[in-house]
Parts: sequence; C-alpha cells; structure tokens
Amino acid sequence: MKLLSFRNSRGKRSYGIRTERGIVDLGSRLGERYASLRALLAAPGGITLAREYEQAAPDYQESEVAFLPVIEHPNKIFCVGMNYAAKRQEFAETNPAPTLFIRFPDSQTGHRCPVVKPLQSREFDYEGELAVVIGTGGRGIRREDALRHVAGYACYMDGSVRDWQHSWFTAGKNWHDTGAFGPWLVTPDEIGDPQQLRLRTFLNGMQVQDDTTASMIHPVAELVEYISTFSALSPGDVIITGSPGGVGKKRVPPLFMQAGDTVEVEISGIGRLCNVIADEVVEPLDSVAALQAVEAAAA
Amino acid sequence: MKLLSFRNSRGKRSYGIRTERGIVDLGSRLGERYASLRALLAAPGGITLAREYEQAAPDYQESEVAFLPVIEHPNKIFCVGMNYAAKRQEFAETNPAPTLFIRFPDSQTGHRCPVVKPLQSREFDYEGELAVVIGTGGRGIRREDALRHVAGYACYMDGSVRDWQHSWFTAGKNWHDTGAFGPWLVTPDEIGDPQQLRLRTFLNGMQVQDDTTASMIHPVAELVEYISTFSALSPGDVIITGSPGGVGKKRVPPLFMQAGDTVEVEISGIGRLCNVIADEVVEPLDSVAALQAVEAAAA
Repeated sequence: MKLLSFRNSRGKRSYGIRTERGIVDLGSRLGERYASLRALLAAPGGITLAREYEQAAPDYQESEVAFLPVIEHPNKIFCVGMNYAAKRQEFAETNPAPTLFIRFPDSQTGHRCPVVKPLQSREFDYEGELAVVIGTGGRGIRREDALRHVAGYACYMDGSVRDWQHSWFTAGKNWHDTGAFGPWLVTPDEIGDPQQLRLRTFLNGMQVQDDTTASMIHPVAELVEYISTFSALSPGDVIITGSPGGVGKKRVPPLFMQAGDTVEVEISGIGRLCNVIADEVVEPLDSVAALQAVEAAAA
Repeated sequence: MKLLSFRNSRGKRSYGIRTERGIVDLGSRLGERYASLRALLAAPGGITLAREYEQAAPDYQESEVAFLPVIEHPNKIFCVGMNYAAKRQEFAETNPAPTLFIRFPDSQTGHRCPVVKPLQSREFDYEGELAVVIGTGGRGIRREDALRHVAGYACYMDGSVRDWQHSWFTAGKNWHDTGAFGPWLVTPDEIGDPQQLRLRTFLNGMQVQDDTTASMIHPVAELVEYISTFSALSPGDVIITGSPGGVGKKRVPPLFMQAGDTVEVEISGIGRLCNVIADEVVEPLDSVAALQAVEAAAA
C-alpha cells in the first residue's frame, strides 16, 4: 500500500492511498479520528484500517492534488551521512560510527513542489536517499526487531547547501524547501528487504547516482537500533539513510543545481520523486514587521 | 521579570513569575488563553500582560513546585559548540563558522530534577552555558535588531555524552534528561548586555568553569543573525550559546560526572541552576511491548 499526504484542489490538507486508479482520500473518511497520516500511523491498527479503503473508488487523480511531504511534521528527522562506501571515499570519512544530523520539518517539501536553492549558496547539491518512516516507536530497539518498527519507505532528495555544511551539517541541511520527501511511503510488505533496492538520482534526465541499498555501511535495522539507543523514536519519525557516491560537490568540475533544473530520485518498488529547482525569492524583512507588531502591542 | 515553567503540588503543568516572595501562577490565570509559557511568548503583548501580575500574592513557594525546562517544548533548540576561545583551544577547533547542532526537546529537564547519566556512557561531561530564548521570530534577522528578538536568558547545563559525540554531536547530545534548562528566564531589561555576564560551573561545589560571556567568539546577536539566515526562528526557540573552557574531557586526568554528583551553572543576573546526577534506570524493553500491541491490533 502507498500512503501519501496532500492538499486537495480546494487547498485542504489530507492524506490517503495512492492506487493505480487514483488517490483514495482517507482524510475525508478518517480525519476526525486521525488528523494526519502521522496520527494514523500512531494508532494501533491504523494501517489495517487504511487497508479497508484500498479498493474504494478514487477521489482524485494525481494531477488534481498538491503533494505534501509524506509526513508533514515528523517529531524527529534523523539524517545519516557518509553511509555508502563510495560517498565515504569521496569525503575521506573514516569514523566508523553512523554520521547523524538533524533536519527540522520546515526544511521539507513534497513531490512536484519547488525545491528552493538558497540565495546565499553557490553550492546547492543533490543527494538521493531512502527514507524510513517509523510506525511503532520505542527506545532500545533491537536490531532483530527493528524492521517491524517501520511503517514504510519513501524517496528523499536531501538537498545540501555545501558552502554552509561543515562537519556538523546543521546549517547546510535546514534551509526551507531543500528536502523533498515523497511521493508516498510504501508499506514494508511491498518492499521486502530494504537492503535490496536500486537507488538512482537524475539531474535534468542525466543519471548522476546509481547504487543499491545493499551498499549501505549501516543498514536500516542497525540505524534504528543505534538511534533508538540514545533517542526515543515515535510514529512518523523519519530516518534518511544517506546518499550513494556521485554527488555534485565531488565531481570534476563540480555539478551544482540551478533554478530550472529537474532533480529526480527513483527507488525500485517505491517510485520516482520529482522536483524542479527554483531560486529563493527574497522576502521583505518579515522579521522587522514582526518586531514592530510585538513592540507596538507592548507599548 | 523571571518567568518559569513548573508542575504544581497536584502535578498540574503551569508557568508563572518567580518573585522574591514566591511564585505567581500565571497558568491558573491565563492558561485558557495561553496554554504554556511558549504560547504566552508567542502572543504580541504577552510579556506586558504577565507584568500586570508581578505584584500579585504568590501562589507557591519554590519548594512547593517541580521545575520544568523553562520552555518545555521548543520548536527548535540550536546548540553552539566551540564558542569560547579556551574551549576552541582545548578541542583544536579552527573552523571560523559557528559550530551548530540540535537537541530535541525530550533531551531536556528542569532545575532540581535529576540529570541522567546514560548507562552506555563512561564519559558524561558538564558544560555550563547561557541559553537565549527567542520572543519574536523571523528569518533574516539583522544583527543590529537581534537582541530585540530575545524574550530572555537562562542557564543551561548541556550534558555531553563524549563517547558518543563525534564531530556531528547528534548522538552525544540527545539522551533523555541530559540537558538542564533553568531555573527561569530573565527578561532582557534585567540583563542589559548579554556579553557582560559571568558564567561559572560547579561540580560538587568545586568551581570547574569560570569565564564571562565577553569571551564568546560569536556573540548572541551574531548567532541570531547567522541561524535565522538558514532557518526561521519562532517564539520559544532556544539557542544555547556554548561553553567556556574547563570541561571534564580535557582535564588531566579527565573529570566526568557520576551518579550522586551535584552540577550547578551560575550566571550573574540570572541565578543558579542545580541538578544531581542519577544513573539511568534500565527499563524493560518497552519497544517490544509497543510492537506487540500494534501487531495484536493489526491481527
């Protein structure tokens, strides 16, 4: 089953099932009990309930909805760096522990939405990745139980602002609309072994990354175990499992994304996440307006 | 004015004003409009409203409440590493950009609550820091406006699990109950220049860190500017501004925290944050029970 979050043609947020015939709107049916896909995942039996609607008549065609990030407001988004042998070689990484950094939810966007190249960056790079969505939370999850904690898998384009990245990543990975997450999650029964998926990234149709998840240094189950050792996981949390070699920063000459470029991440059994790059629009200094409003209210 | 979050003697969460005479409960008076201190800060005029109760008769003495983290659920907690000259020297850090990592809210605890030394760590280190609480949000905040975006200042004990830290920090800084945040925030009118505060940390009464915020490499206003360049700030967000030299990891011999130790962070004009270290209690594998419940519901 493929589950997604979207805005319908009237702009209302919802979530549903993507079938071959179209999108079945679950939000309109279950929204009073479960306000979001994350809330549905958090309900014991939520996925079973969703399956009852798999054969329902579709409410929308894909072209009629605006995709949202698969999980719009995860509690925690863990990102794994340097998790493919080729990538580690490119960046001369030797530390054996999983490289981990955090994205905030407001850095995300959905399938077919613009991915925004920051005004302050000249090195906006692509990274195609497998995203793991947690279904059942916990701390101290054992490796052998880990995959039963997974609600599903999705594609992620972990857009990287290389000129702000440093060895701690935070400033390079949290610009708004730089992380594309979609188009949907696919439940584990349709995926089988998450370490046997082909992952490819395309820039303007040219294949720039091509590897399989078998090349991960720390496979999904080990990542769930490692992370849940130090931080509790909860339903809807996301682990982005790292990118293969071939990123733009390490090419000769470097290959960065520019406005108008199309970036696509395709994973076998999941689908193809597609986004067009847009330049950041400089907004008037909204922070100054906010200050003035607050200070007027205090006067 | 000193604002805090607490649980009252009946276990109910609230927030209020700490005065010399005791604690004035704002939650009981304003809770229907503003559910938390964060919500109060987000309301234009919220601080002005709070000031109307500064002279009210106190509802509790400090000994009658359980302190919560000053802001219990910040949207974003940014932590700055290597921001004092002595600390940079100790860790041989040379990168001129602010070192930034993230704490999740569930890693925090309050004044006088146990700080938990993880079972898996043999290197649990203290770091006394100045915490900045955002009052007015925004992106692209200019350095010269930055301090007007601050709601107040507090003490922070950024407990560091050194053996899990690495250069990306995430796994070393997110264990539960390792970041103590309190006792309260003090509004900027009582602080004046945030770069003229004395910061001291004590372990079992022995002074282990002693510096002034004048020694920060990146002062508060610059941090607000830098962070808001790549990520929007909102009311209640927290910036932990880094620790002076003298941490346990770099002492000869190293000095780490053990169960029963008392750690205190004192900042002039704010107060003294006090916590006792406790060993982590190993819980039965709650993740297994969660799995079983979910799988039973799905069967």
